[in-house]
Amino acid sequence: MDESELRNLLENIKDNKIGVEEGIEKLKDLPFKDLGYAMVDNHREIRVGYPEVIYCEGKTVDQVKGIVEFMLTKDNNILGTRASKEMYKAVKEICPYAKYNESGRTITIVKNSKDKTESYIAIVTAGTSDIPVAEEAFETANIFGNKVEKIFDVGVAGIHRMFNKLDIIRKAKVVIVIAGMEGALASVIGGLVDKPVIAVPTSVGYGASFGGVAALLSMLNSCASGVSVVNIDNGFGAGYIASIINKL
Amino acid sequence: MDESELRNLLENIKDNKIGVEEGIEKLKDLPFKDLGYAMVDNHREIRVGYPEVIYCEGKTVDQVKGIVEFMLTKDNNILGTRASKEMYKAVKEICPYAKYNESGRTITIVKNSKDKTESYIAIVTAGTSDIPVAEEAFETANIFGNKVEKIFDVGVAGIHRMFNKLDIIRKAKVVIVIAGMEGALASVIGGLVDKPVIAVPTSVGYGASFGGVAALLSMLNSCASGVSVVNIDNGFGAGYIASIINKL
Amino acid sequence: MDESELRNLLENIKDNKIGVEEGIEKLKDLPFKDLGYAMVDNHREIRVGYPEVIYCEGKTVDQVKGIVEFMLTKDNNILGTRASKEMYKAVKEICPYAKYNESGRTITIVKNSKDKTESYIAIVTAGTSDIPVAEEAFETANIFGNKVEKIFDVGVAGIHRMFNKLDIIRKAKVVIVIAGMEGALASVIGGLVDKPVIAVPTSVGYGASFGGVAALLSMLNSCASGVSVVNIDNGFGAGYIASIINKL
Amino acid sequence: MDESELRNLLENIKDNKIGVEEGIEKLKDLPFKDLGYAMVDNHREIRVGYPEVIYCEGKTVDQVKGIVEFMLTKDNNILGTRASKEMYKAVKEICPYAKYNESGRTITIVKNSKDKTESYIAIVTAGTSDIPVAEEAFETANIFGNKVEKIFDVGVAGIHRMFNKLDIIRKAKVVIVIAGMEGALASVIGGLVDKPVIAVPTSVGYGASFGGVAALLSMLNSCASGVSVVNIDNGFGAGYIASIINKL
Amino acid sequence: MDESELRNLLENIKDNKIGVEEGIEKLKDLPFKDLGYAMVDNHREIRVGYPEVIYCEGKTVDQVKGIVEFMLTKDNNILGTRASKEMYKAVKEICPYAKYNESGRTITIVKNSKDKTESYIAIVTAGTSDIPVAEEAFETANIFGNKVEKIFDVGVAGIHRMFNKLDIIRKAKVVIVIAGMEGALASVIGGLVDKPVIAVPTSVGYGASFGGVAALLSMLNSCASGVSVVNIDNGFGAGYIASIINKL
Amino acid sequence: MDESELRNLLENIKDNKIGVEEGIEKLKDLPFKDLGYAMVDNHREIRVGYPEVIYCEGKTVDQVKGIVEFMLTKDNNILGTRASKEMYKAVKEICPYAKYNESGRTITIVKNSKDKTESYIAIVTAGTSDIPVAEEAFETANIFGNKVEKIFDVGVAGIHRMFNKLDIIRKAKVVIVIAGMEGALASVIGGLVDKPVIAVPTSVGYGASFGGVAALLSMLNSCASGVSVVNIDNGFGAGYIASIINKL
Amino acid sequence: MDESELRNLLENIKDNKIGVEEGIEKLKDLPFKDLGYAMVDNHREIRVGYPEVIYCEGKTVDQVKGIVEFMLTKDNNILGTRASKEMYKAVKEICPYAKYNESGRTITIVKNSKDKTESYIAIVTAGTSDIPVAEEAFETANIFGNKVEKIFDVGVAGIHRMFNKLDIIRKAKVVIVIAGMEGALASVIGGLVDKPVIAVPTSVGYGASFGGVAALLSMLNSCASGVSVVNIDNGFGAGYIASIINKL
Amino acid sequence: MDESELRNLLENIKDNKIGVEEGIEKLKDLPFKDLGYAMVDNHREIRVGYPEVIYCEGKTVDQVKGIVEFMLTKDNNILGTRASKEMYKAVKEICPYAKYNESGRTITIVKNSKDKTESYIAIVTAGTSDIPVAEEAFETANIFGNKVEKIFDVGVAGIHRMFNKLDIIRKAKVVIVIAGMEGALASVIGGLVDKPVIAVPTSVGYGASFGGVAALLSMLNSCASGVSVVNIDNGFGAGYIASIINKL
Repeated sequence: MDESELRNLLENIKDNKIGVEEGIEKLKDLPFKDLGYAMVDNHREIRVGYPEVIYCEGKTVDQVKGIVEFMLTKDNNILGTRASKEMYKAVKEICPYAKYNESGRTITIVKNSKDKTESYIAIVTAGTSDIPVAEEAFETANIFGNKVEKIFDVGVAGIHRMFNKLDIIRKAKVVIVIAGMEGALASVIGGLVDKPVIAVPTSVGYGASFGGVAALLSMLNSCASGVSVVNIDNGFGAGYIASIINKL
Repeated sequence: MDESELRNLLENIKDNKIGVEEGIEKLKDLPFKDLGYAMVDNHREIRVGYPEVIYCEGKTVDQVKGIVEFMLTKDNNILGTRASKEMYKAVKEICPYAKYNESGRTITIVKNSKDKTESYIAIVTAGTSDIPVAEEAFETANIFGNKVEKIFDVGVAGIHRMFNKLDIIRKAKVVIVIAGMEGALASVIGGLVDKPVIAVPTSVGYGASFGGVAALLSMLNSCASGVSVVNIDNGFGAGYIASIINKL
Repeated sequence: MDESELRNLLENIKDNKIGVEEGIEKLKDLPFKDLGYAMVDNHREIRVGYPEVIYCEGKTVDQVKGIVEFMLTKDNNILGTRASKEMYKAVKEICPYAKYNESGRTITIVKNSKDKTESYIAIVTAGTSDIPVAEEAFETANIFGNKVEKIFDVGVAGIHRMFNKLDIIRKAKVVIVIAGMEGALASVIGGLVDKPVIAVPTSVGYGASFGGVAALLSMLNSCASGVSVVNIDNGFGAGYIASIINKL
Repeated sequence: MDESELRNLLENIKDNKIGVEEGIEKLKDLPFKDLGYAMVDNHREIRVGYPEVIYCEGKTVDQVKGIVEFMLTKDNNILGTRASKEMYKAVKEICPYAKYNESGRTITIVKNSKDKTESYIAIVTAGTSDIPVAEEAFETANIFGNKVEKIFDVGVAGIHRMFNKLDIIRKAKVVIVIAGMEGALASVIGGLVDKPVIAVPTSVGYGASFGGVAALLSMLNSCASGVSVVNIDNGFGAGYIASIINKL
Repeated sequence: MDESELRNLLENIKDNKIGVEEGIEKLKDLPFKDLGYAMVDNHREIRVGYPEVIYCEGKTVDQVKGIVEFMLTKDNNILGTRASKEMYKAVKEICPYAKYNESGRTITIVKNSKDKTESYIAIVTAGTSDIPVAEEAFETANIFGNKVEKIFDVGVAGIHRMFNKLDIIRKAKVVIVIAGMEGALASVIGGLVDKPVIAVPTSVGYGASFGGVAALLSMLNSCASGVSVVNIDNGFGAGYIASIINKL
Repeated sequence: MDESELRNLLENIKDNKIGVEEGIEKLKDLPFKDLGYAMVDNHREIRVGYPEVIYCEGKTVDQVKGIVEFMLTKDNNILGTRASKEMYKAVKEICPYAKYNESGRTITIVKNSKDKTESYIAIVTAGTSDIPVAEEAFETANIFGNKVEKIFDVGVAGIHRMFNKLDIIRKAKVVIVIAGMEGALASVIGGLVDKPVIAVPTSVGYGASFGGVAALLSMLNSCASGVSVVNIDNGFGAGYIASIINKL
Repeated sequence: MDESELRNLLENIKDNKIGVEEGIEKLKDLPFKDLGYAMVDNHREIRVGYPEVIYCEGKTVDQVKGIVEFMLTKDNNILGTRASKEMYKAVKEICPYAKYNESGRTITIVKNSKDKTESYIAIVTAGTSDIPVAEEAFETANIFGNKVEKIFDVGVAGIHRMFNKLDIIRKAKVVIVIAGMEGALASVIGGLVDKPVIAVPTSVGYGASFGGVAALLSMLNSCASGVSVVNIDNGFGAGYIASIINKL
Repeated sequence: MDESELRNLLENIKDNKIGVEEGIEKLKDLPFKDLGYAMVDNHREIRVGYPEVIYCEGKTVDQVKGIVEFMLTKDNNILGTRASKEMYKAVKEICPYAKYNESGRTITIVKNSKDKTESYIAIVTAGTSDIPVAEEAFETANIFGNKVEKIFDVGVAGIHRMFNKLDIIRKAKVVIVIAGMEGALASVIGGLVDKPVIAVPTSVGYGASFGGVAALLSMLNSCASGVSVVNIDNGFGAGYIASIINKL
């Protein structure tokens, strides 16, 4: 309810077109209704084509199936993250065209495929074991309508591999760098491109990698400006932020 | 040296216009020269108006003065971060129009002021003690040519204050959220806007805030997608990333 | 044994109504007996209707069954926390009306159901995966005789959901806030209500949530006064404290 | 603005006693204004006698003086926490009856002293070095109108000292336990009383006390139910929560 | 080889009673041979009746069996710690009178049972889930020839239980206190007895107990002098140290 | 008051030799008075010659002076730990024969010097910078009446130095090992002697010594049985435990 | 491509022996191709006999098999680390002479066995449970062509065992020390030899060993110069570094 | 004293050229004297020109002066690390040709300058603030007789700078990489050279650099083999290890 709607309401009350009690009803939970509406509108925005997202971890197979069933009544695309194969099978029963990315553990249901963005997001991993997180980021960016380029396994231990791909990385509008033991990669790429770099530490590694903490700290300490960081293994978050930026 | 320049060079060698030794000179450190050039070009890019940046902490007053002296021979704006008042005084001797932001601890030297961006960066702090980091972010964003809106002291303990400013936050192209004890603020704002949010934990606080770690973790765990994080107290980094995004 | 009882005893000894040896018996473990008695009386207080509580984790199925068997000889209600389904089955054999809350992992045996309190405890969770801890808190508060209102899945990422329930939260006498990745919720609610808020971090989450540590720190740093915190996943503790306060 | 005030306003608009524009002014930031106003009044309600609270740390002497100056125009009591002696001196210039608790580092300005509560809050410390935090809790509870009993230096290393005071602890409506190296005390008292216990770890100690972390963990792990915890050194928070509970 | 032996050797060389090469042999690894011998003699000292100890964790069933087989050729008692049931079965094949403590996970083989010490070691646990560590300590102390008194489940949450047993605790020559979530117990007992107290934190617990770290820190911070600490879950170490002290 | 004293008292009451009121006085705070009294006498027993101990850190110069003044009225020796030079000067004014150990930061007042124990405590340090903690341990052990041998600067980096002193270490009844960067020393000595070893980590060191944590962990993980650990820098604790053991 | 090759190429272009386009092909990715090629050859140089290394963890059996299949087309030896038995079986199908070290979890394929170095690497472990890491280091050093001496189970708890082997340790050109609970061993050996010591902490241990962190810190704090450290459990890294040094 | 010297001595005794008492003198502390003497000579061997090393931190000015005074009576070079300017002034009084490296905080006294090694050690820093640690490493390597090349300020944020120096880094026999916020540099260089790389994390940095921990973890997780790590800020250790390797 913006100011003009408010003016309208009050004038209607003044003119006895709307009763006092009805006015109270409309006003008393203002601006919560607005807030609520805004949340729905903006957070999982209702514009056509924006997918609805389900974080499946910690939910039962039945719960996930039920949520998808409800969502299918609406016209949006659907993205399920951290979904098990069992969840996918249950979803497939009610939606035969649902797809599963086994590495990224995502369920995707595309009702209306749209044109992708012209600019693209580059998703770069240091090693092969970082790929599952990259795939989650990819499916997220993809269903949000972004063109994506994947550049995998170009860690700093063999830095020439990354240099070979530098051109494609530099031409992206946003770069996602995903690394477990080689958090250094975000730093190096951040120093070589002039685009926003979203760094994702992964829990891959052993010993003093401490489940991704070493990579997280390394990324946070990147002197190369232009690097910001999301939670360990948070491929979805990186894909989502990259999408927001890519569409600016 | 791009492919056409390379073709040119080789044809000149073939045609004896350039001697072999001269060719060796030009080629032997290729592509390092290119890389180097790219770095200079892109990382502290040489385009007119991009400031040169000095991280002053850990340098002596003389070193800072010396670096500024050298930089003044070029035509760029200059930004010194984490600069002490003593450093500023020394710089002022050789550059009377240098300015000092005492709270943000920045030295700025503007040789050629340009038009600011139309879109703006919103810099939001949870408390008054987070303002120094915000000022560093502000000076950074400002000298990089961005329009900035400051919204200070709107932490979640009095969440209505933030709601009062929500409009101005939502209309920004990028939002920087700075908080020490109330990392929650990034999470709340991330849930209310659909723009990239750069969260900066600050070392402000006592007890179990652990010098910013509590805020850092809180921000990293933000369920609200769209939030990425930089190092504790890294106002410069946030300002720089926001600038890159704001100018996309 | 208070001072008047002591006076009585000594006068009885003086008057030869009580023998010296008997007096020694009565006095030699004083005040331990008192303390002990106080513990039984106050800690798992013996007043009618107060349940006896078994922390089942780390006990064998037989041990749990044996303890319940003994407790059934007394007239109290019984609460078993962190109980496995196997434990429940064994208990059901000796007490057919025992009930099991699968999500909260509690066994409850209600011998004498009493009137609930008029004032109520609000149990609020940020996400659906925080519900098991909430259910433990609920069963605890419930068997201690409290009226409870559950408000689940109102995390700050969609803060309007919480605002929609704010009324019911504000009218509670005590509020329990349970959150894993969104410790922020305790902070936000603490700023909006003027009742004691008991915050329970949960071990739900991944990456830099560190098994509940991020939520714990976030809650401890809540600037909003009125928030105190219990151990990670300690639904029982929160329910018990809330019950003490609700009955003041 | 509660529902009856709202009804009144709308009826006045209907009856043309209040113009539409004036109504818009009053309503457009509703309920933010209410909330906001409450926030200023100690982030909570406007009841007479509730003090206004200033967290002085991180503010300049001038800022603190300025805030107090503004607050003095209103009729409330004032509490400044973490205030330096310099701040106190500056405040005293504009308010001669301001008082300073040197140990607790609080400034208190009592404009209208009220009757204290009948029930009291017990503030217990393990050692003498925990007293500053206890004094902050005391001044907070006191200016909020609570009767308080102080029991200092009764740590578990000499547990008989605590037993000597057990009666006075047990008769309190709420108990605050403050300890740095002997987090155990909260656990022991929690097992002996049936009232809410607010535990405050302090940063007092050396070596593996890690600035209060050892006490914090010890308190969080208290098996004795009934103990909840606030941030390290957070005497204000404990005093405030205890006040809320004491006045239920 | 002490100085007089050395003098003897050199005089024998001088007198040609011992050849130069033989002298070299005797001298060149001096004093390593002595040190080595001393190690065998003192560390798992060779005096009759001292058991040989095998730390079974990380060894295969066959390795454990093989080591026991070799040890059986000597005349000592044998203690295997952290032994699985499978290891026990394998050992029993070659030594039918081997015994297994299922809770403490120890294998004991007593070839020559000796009189126990007159003074005794008290082993105290806070909870029932601390008993496995207590049993390891018990078997260790027992096979080293010590009289032991067990006092289990007397945590501070019900401190009267401990007071009821205080007499038996006080009369011990050494006290072992074992606790997971209630590290406080070591502190309390340390304040009540004037004997050496060996505290063993256990990894029992959840949430902020961090696998025994909370108890460890709590114990290290015990203000009550007289408490020293061993590694988390190190029942053997506690039993061994207590035995050394008990036999002084 | 033991059982026979109690019997006596009751018989005196019975025989009218002691009045009821007098009996109440004697009994009502039993056994608290006993316990309490013991506490004052170094939290333990009242044996003649046991010093009274003041932990000076966190106390003011006046407080320390006041406590000493009171203690001087009794006939015990006095030990002040973590005392500043200022405290010492203040104490010296009222007690000219007070002594100050500048390295160990202890004040000692010996009213009645007694014979030392025949057996001795060995205090071993790894480096010279560990000596202050060793001196605190020394003064503690000394004033408690123990013979002490100091062996300083024999860290494992030059392990031969320790071997040169091994004899004197082995002949001690208890060994205190103090080390900051070389926690290894406790482990090595524990493997070479068959006496109780009390290990004290010190906060000496830089980098990954983390204020004594590295040494603490190293000591806790000592495979060599016989090593128990006290808090970082806790020279007093080590001296006190060693004294208890040395006098067994 | 070194300078002389470059000179050659340019002269060939000048002499029309090589066409411009061909020259471009050869030069445009220079020196990336060189770097890249070196990377494939074990991230380093192409010298004959250097094995190719596969880090198998996080790869599927099929992936490992596929990589080996490709590598077999070249003439190098092959080392697979962190390989499961299943991986080995799959590899054996395509390469019957592949060997598996079950303890060290390595697959080795030796196509051309070469003479070993004259100088040798000593691999020392503190305990038997550290042997798997030692075997990984051994296989690495071995397939890189180094002579190796293994000295296992000589931890400081029985330091004489190590002294008995000191000669063989001292004569090595490089020493690898591997320890989980006894990080002290690296320190002790570092003080006794004048060769580079590579320390490898292992995750073996329990309680406060924290998965190798205690050993890691202990090793980093070794005062004995000459000790450098690799990641926890990183036997391969230690073997590889030792090989580089041994071949200098 | 090696075996041939021992043989000689014994034969001299046999031949009466050396008396028994003299032989005892020479042998009785063997091999401790050898070991010990080696220790003084930097814990190692007595080769001419090896400097004596004093770790000055934690010593008084007088102590440092005294140690140097004693050392000057011998013919060795002297290195004092972590020395304050005051220490240097005191040393200069007794040794006018002592030199002070203000950045590296080292005192060096060169009595006999020798030829440097032909091969050299490369010391590389990421930033200018890492230079003090580099200077300590330099002075160490230098006084041990090594040729050194310094390459400062070539962090990955401007990776082209490092590539420009890659040749000089690759030609070194050992490489020391020193970095605070850019631990990544060790990883990158480790991937580009085939020489041993000693990585030194520095405590330079802010926020989540945690006093060097982030760099330490980053370096430990370097996938690039060939990198081993020393303690944070341990320039001496790195210089010493590099010297050992450079002289192999």
